[in-house]
Amino acid sequence: MFVNDRLHQQIQFLREIDDLKQILRQTVLTKDKRQENDAEHSWHLAMLVMILSEYSNDTSIDLLRTLKMVLIHDLVEIDAGDTFCYDEQGRDGKVEREREAAHRIFSILPSEQFQEYLDLWEEFEAMETPEAQFAAAVDRVQPLLLNLYSEGHAWKKHGVNKSQVIERNHHIAKGSKVLWEFAQNLINEAVKRGYLIDE
Amino acid sequence: MFVNDRLHQQIQFLREIDDLKQILRQTVLTKDKRQENDAEHSWHLAMLVMILSEYSNDTSIDLLRTLKMVLIHDLVEIDAGDTFCYDEQGRDGKVEREREAAHRIFSILPSEQFQEYLDLWEEFEAMETPEAQFAAAVDRVQPLLLNLYSEGHAWKKHGVNKSQVIERNHHIAKGSKVLWEFAQNLINEAVKRGYLIDE
Repeated sequence: MFVNDRLHQQIQFLREIDDLKQILRQTVLTKDKRQENDAEHSWHLAMLVMILSEYSNDTSIDLLRTLKMVLIHDLVEIDAGDTFCYDEQGRDGKVEREREAAHRIFSILPSEQFQEYLDLWEEFEAMETPEAQFAAAVDRVQPLLLNLYSEGHAWKKHGVNKSQVIERNHHIAKGSKVLWEFAQNLINEAVKRGYLIDE
Repeated sequence: MFVNDRLHQQIQFLREIDDLKQILRQTVLTKDKRQENDAEHSWHLAMLVMILSEYSNDTSIDLLRTLKMVLIHDLVEIDAGDTFCYDEQGRDGKVEREREAAHRIFSILPSEQFQEYLDLWEEFEAMETPEAQFAAAVDRVQPLLLNLYSEGHAWKKHGVNKSQVIERNHHIAKGSKVLWEFAQNLINEAVKRGYLIDE
């Protein structure tokens, strides 16, 4: 059925990653309040990258590389699962679990694509390049938006407070000062509306 | 809360399109057989574009524009709904409904972004540029894969036969001769396994 071995490997990879649609996150959709999954989240991030790239601190970022990064950054969760960002215990061993997952999943691809996507995933995780910093910024802004528009659903469920949200999100500023200003306004608004505890 | 009017418009758009996650398609996921939604489908298409672009008939396609196209191509379905590609009646008035939807949804954006995304959507629909032809090809290959890996779930449910699948998918060849060769093999394999009727 496969025209050649290379296409066979690529199709196997594209089948494997169908499972990203079954990894549930803590954030919920704005309308029906069901939990978002990682594939939907990755698509939404790509839309944020496209629409908001003008606010990157570095205005000359490579948009294609940034898009690729957000589209693949959560694939490791097919094996490692989603860790709620305010779950301190869940973060134990997360780095190791995710690194193993990246090697298993990307190694389904032909070798030079394996290397390309492993490098991209590591670039995202290291958060050192302007592209990775902007990708990480939108990866924080998107759940803030969903939390605000779902009346603080995930925050209330887990008793999250303002200082935790500030602590977990302040690196948005590394990717975008404008989006961090917006995020701080959003957090204050969420406190005002009673969606978030201001201890 | 919004730093400026422009960001306000962009955030409103990013909130509006959260609804793409609630538009269900006829294809089902390979593992739990629930219906796929348009956001998941759009993410999966972006992955196909990234992994399979070497098979585009035109090997110098602009990958960034192709990715943008597949990421936004289904937004019109937030208003117009998903039409099953083998539903002849459902296609009546589809073009007009989708055009109105594109205008409403993209017009939430600042004017030059409205124009950029409306142009991209129209480029996708016209299927004339090499980018649009490759985007349209992966938009057909992805449901073929899901149908094969879900044992022909959507085909069986709607009593679809081989000649209908050939008719609806042969334009894959315009974007990629290699992927069309693969798709034909896949269709024959589906018939052999009893997933698809060979009338």
